[in-house]
Amino acid sequence: MLSKVKRLLIGRPRKSTALEDEKLNKLKALAILSSDALSSVAYGTEQILLVLITAGFAALWYSIPISIAVLGLLIILILSYRQTIFSYPGGGGAYIVAQDNLGKSPSLIAGGSLLVDYILTVAVSSSAGTDAITSAFPSLHDHRIAIALIMIIFLTIMNLRGVTESASVLAVPIYLFVVAIFVLIISGIIHYVAGGAHAAAPQFGATVSNVSLFLLLKAFSSGCSALTGVEAVSNAIPNFRKPAAKNAATTLMMMGLILGCMFIGISLLAYWYGVRPNPHETVISQIANATFGRGVMYYIIQGVTALILFLAANTAYSAFPLLAFMLAKDKYMPHMFMVRGDRLGYSNGILFLSIFSALLVIVFGGNTENLIPLYAVGVFIPFTLSQLGMMIRWIKLKPPGWIVKLAINTVGMLTTLSITLIFIFTKFSQVWVIFIFLPLVLYFFMKINRHYKNTAEQLRIDITKDKPMVKGNTIIIPVAGITRVVMNTISYAKTLSDNVVAVYVGVDDEAIQKMEQKWEEWDVGIRLVVLRSRYRSIINPLRKFIDTVEWKKADEDHITVLIPQFITKHWWENILHNQTSLLMRAYLINYKDVIVTTVPFHLNK
Amino acid sequence: MLSKVKRLLIGRPRKSTALEDEKLNKLKALAILSSDALSSVAYGTEQILLVLITAGFAALWYSIPISIAVLGLLIILILSYRQTIFSYPGGGGAYIVAQDNLGKSPSLIAGGSLLVDYILTVAVSSSAGTDAITSAFPSLHDHRIAIALIMIIFLTIMNLRGVTESASVLAVPIYLFVVAIFVLIISGIIHYVAGGAHAAAPQFGATVSNVSLFLLLKAFSSGCSALTGVEAVSNAIPNFRKPAAKNAATTLMMMGLILGCMFIGISLLAYWYGVRPNPHETVISQIANATFGRGVMYYIIQGVTALILFLAANTAYSAFPLLAFMLAKDKYMPHMFMVRGDRLGYSNGILFLSIFSALLVIVFGGNTENLIPLYAVGVFIPFTLSQLGMMIRWIKLKPPGWIVKLAINTVGMLTTLSITLIFIFTKFSQVWVIFIFLPLVLYFFMKINRHYKNTAEQLRIDITKDKPMVKGNTIIIPVAGITRVVMNTISYAKTLSDNVVAVYVGVDDEAIQKMEQKWEEWDVGIRLVVLRSRYRSIINPLRKFIDTVEWKKADEDHITVLIPQFITKHWWENILHNQTSLLMRAYLINYKDVIVTTVPFHLNK
Repeated sequence: MLSKVKRLLIGRPRKSTALEDEKLNKLKALAILSSDALSSVAYGTEQILLVLITAGFAALWYSIPISIAVLGLLIILILSYRQTIFSYPGGGGAYIVAQDNLGKSPSLIAGGSLLVDYILTVAVSSSAGTDAITSAFPSLHDHRIAIALIMIIFLTIMNLRGVTESASVLAVPIYLFVVAIFVLIISGIIHYVAGGAHAAAPQFGATVSNVSLFLLLKAFSSGCSALTGVEAVSNAIPNFRKPAAKNAATTLMMMGLILGCMFIGISLLAYWYGVRPNPHETVISQIANATFGRGVMYYIIQGVTALILFLAANTAYSAFPLLAFMLAKDKYMPHMFMVRGDRLGYSNGILFLSIFSALLVIVFGGNTENLIPLYAVGVFIPFTLSQLGMMIRWIKLKPPGWIVKLAINTVGMLTTLSITLIFIFTKFSQVWVIFIFLPLVLYFFMKINRHYKNTAEQLRIDITKDKPMVKGNTIIIPVAGITRVVMNTISYAKTLSDNVVAVYVGVDDEAIQKMEQKWEEWDVGIRLVVLRSRYRSIINPLRKFIDTVEWKKADEDHITVLIPQFITKHWWENILHNQTSLLMRAYLINYKDVIVTTVPFHLNK
Repeated sequence: MLSKVKRLLIGRPRKSTALEDEKLNKLKALAILSSDALSSVAYGTEQILLVLITAGFAALWYSIPISIAVLGLLIILILSYRQTIFSYPGGGGAYIVAQDNLGKSPSLIAGGSLLVDYILTVAVSSSAGTDAITSAFPSLHDHRIAIALIMIIFLTIMNLRGVTESASVLAVPIYLFVVAIFVLIISGIIHYVAGGAHAAAPQFGATVSNVSLFLLLKAFSSGCSALTGVEAVSNAIPNFRKPAAKNAATTLMMMGLILGCMFIGISLLAYWYGVRPNPHETVISQIANATFGRGVMYYIIQGVTALILFLAANTAYSAFPLLAFMLAKDKYMPHMFMVRGDRLGYSNGILFLSIFSALLVIVFGGNTENLIPLYAVGVFIPFTLSQLGMMIRWIKLKPPGWIVKLAINTVGMLTTLSITLIFIFTKFSQVWVIFIFLPLVLYFFMKINRHYKNTAEQLRIDITKDKPMVKGNTIIIPVAGITRVVMNTISYAKTLSDNVVAVYVGVDDEAIQKMEQKWEEWDVGIRLVVLRSRYRSIINPLRKFIDTVEWKKADEDHITVLIPQFITKHWWENILHNQTSLLMRAYLINYKDVIVTTVPFHLNK
């Protein structure tokens, strides 16, 4: 039943050899890996304007230099990540680069903050997408949490089905979004050049008295939230078709180009049309309204924007399971993240991501906006560590042209470090929690790692020296009477050892005497030990008896307890029987040197 | 931890030999078994008046003849149950009497309706007691369900502690109640004789035009709800000190006497003081007010009345576990109701009763008044069956003086039958559910009985003929690598059989080749079978292999699968490991003829 539902939702299991078919070509990869980055266009410019407007309308012209600065940062990031892709063709996320060049702790900091970040991405994006829907249909406002959860469930199922299938479905809205935004920008420019803009733009280069450096830095760091998601490509290199590194680098460049053009285009139009940030209407909406009026094009743009915000969450679904896999392979996370599911995806990572992001949505009641700065810091810490790692790599290896490469990564490192610091200083009240959370995650990583190392050490043997030894074995059969189940168990015991003893726990004299007499009559050549229980417990006297046997036997000998148990035909019939054998099992399983075997006898009606 | 809490609440376990100390003397028995019956005084008269007032104030005089009729019925019931006690000194509930004289189905009807009834008793009484409390403290009204549940939990703990202890605690309020009501009645009579009654009583014997036979019957049947609980003594004979039957009969007579006096006394006072039923004030409250005014005595009477309504539930706690025990002994209910707990009570019966009554309280939101007629029908059906059974017994056995005894039971049977029919006809809308519920309960009884009989038949052996046979045994060890756990399992396997084979399930060629080579190097004298899994499942290839072995082996031979498993030191560490061995176990346990043993290896750090 359950497995049928699973088949319906997830599809039939796939052979391991089908793995190469799952790989992505460049167009699909662009779709699946860039939704997070591209969707930032929907709010990047707005984030800058929101900070600037606190200094008045006149200050809004600063959005142009700031946008250019963000664009510059984007170029630096793209160039440096391109270098990373070629240096780490097996997958070059911040975790790998930091591990390779900076050592264990920095790599775990990078890995830990990225893992937490992907969870935040899913929570924030699904909530943002829900906001877009409920803005259009206010009657749905009471069902915000349900809508966000449905989206998460939808993404989970898509991703459990497999990478390429979800890419095929998800590529369409992403390309629609890109086309729609470009149509908007081009039409907007034509409209502006043709003199159709009515609103007055703030004067460019005007001195605004109350614009401080702090404000400009804050605006710049807010704009940088448009850059989250850029690292997705370098994490996911193993998902690309061969030649993976080359394809990944090309995809990254394409993504950078599209993102850069869209971002600067929107920022320019916002300036030309004199757009003010407005809590009731997004910047994109204002531009679209000014360009097309409230027509079909306007609604198409709003629709695909809402859709892309939802799909931004999907980037996390490609990145999280891969990163969790890598951490698990290095024994910092549970092994289960290494297991491929029926459809060859890392199902446990996908499910873990879904569950925790759904919990965040529920706990925050769908209002996850306050998590955005936290989420940005969580991205820029690994950015910085990754760049730092690349710098050290160039210094160590000194390949041809390393000076230029070192220069690119140094500029990148300094910029991302500055942005991280700006975030922490300008928005400390929203990001302090990371200073509690990151050490906690590191502690768990270390604890898990120590456990795996200890276990491996205890399990490892020297195959030339350590060989199994044959030892003695005492078999104990607890019996409650003489029945077919007991007979079956004794038959079985006799195939194993000659050293078998049956144990009967009696509550009153009469029952004990009767049992002893019947056992003698039965005469099966096995000694019956009778124990008396004054407190009606079966397990306590049995335990004492086992202790005695254990004390008498040689150190190397085993004790086996064979528990006779009949298996009812229907599961519900179990409640009609005492669960003594289960209790016995549960109790004895923690007994060292005792091996517990349930010998089943299947009832057939 | 859990067991410490249990010790604190329930007390230390008691020896089986302490059972006789748990028995009740007459005074304690009266307290513990009569609370249900005696508490009826609190509402019996009121139930009659409530029906009569629909025909106007003048019709209230009918309450006197109706009360006398109820009193007559009480005498008949007491006399006939006295006969039952002496005929069935081992416990003579309706179930036993019906079984002995009427056969299986009538006894199960009696037993089933009583079981359901006891659950209703607890739900109704705890809700009624809560109403009394919230009438006094209206601010508690929002916490009705919580208060009722706390009462049920309190009763559960008291009863799990053991019969005599709960009797000691519960006897005090019951005797207080009896004393208080008698003080009220005597003071009331003196007050009335002294001419202190102001209200005009309805004229006795006046013809009231709109009083129909239907109305009178309805009033009578409502009054009969005061008789529920009378059967408790005859059910509980095994709980009495020796001579049990004599003590039980004396207790029954005492209870009947007290109940009769209180009931008729309250009815008389209600008539003399011209009490009208009032939704805002109970009849008892009106009488107490008229007699004492709102003084200390008034509040004492109200307080103990509320308390006794709560304690009425306790009668069910003595009766339900005993009846469940009897039904379980006859294989109509699960065996677990036969197990005595640490404190010698039938803990499972007590817990079952608590859970289901608590569910009723929750489902009905504490408003269980509508369940009262249902509950009355549930009592009178077994009453009738019990009397009918006694009639047949007298006719069959014909002991000295049987004609009188037969006459008493015949009158009793006809009366209780009439009341049952009156209930069904006058309150069908509230009692129809019993016609669905009773057949369902009977069906479960039969189904359980059939299962136990089938099981017993399949387990039974002829000890002179059926003897265990020694058969062959093939041991299969699934291995995932060469580790200390595997070595430990192989050592163990070698103590059991020479016919051992290790099975390795590999996903890719490289791993398989490596494993084969290492195994050869290890050279432990056990053959390694290598299976290839294309879908990454371990269990499917293993299953196919077992099928093959099963097909090859002789019919009588066993197959044992030894699963190597390490046990982590801390339970939480388990999530760090794949649960393959648990899955394997869960899967193979349902395989006929395969015995699954987990061979534990305990990690020590």
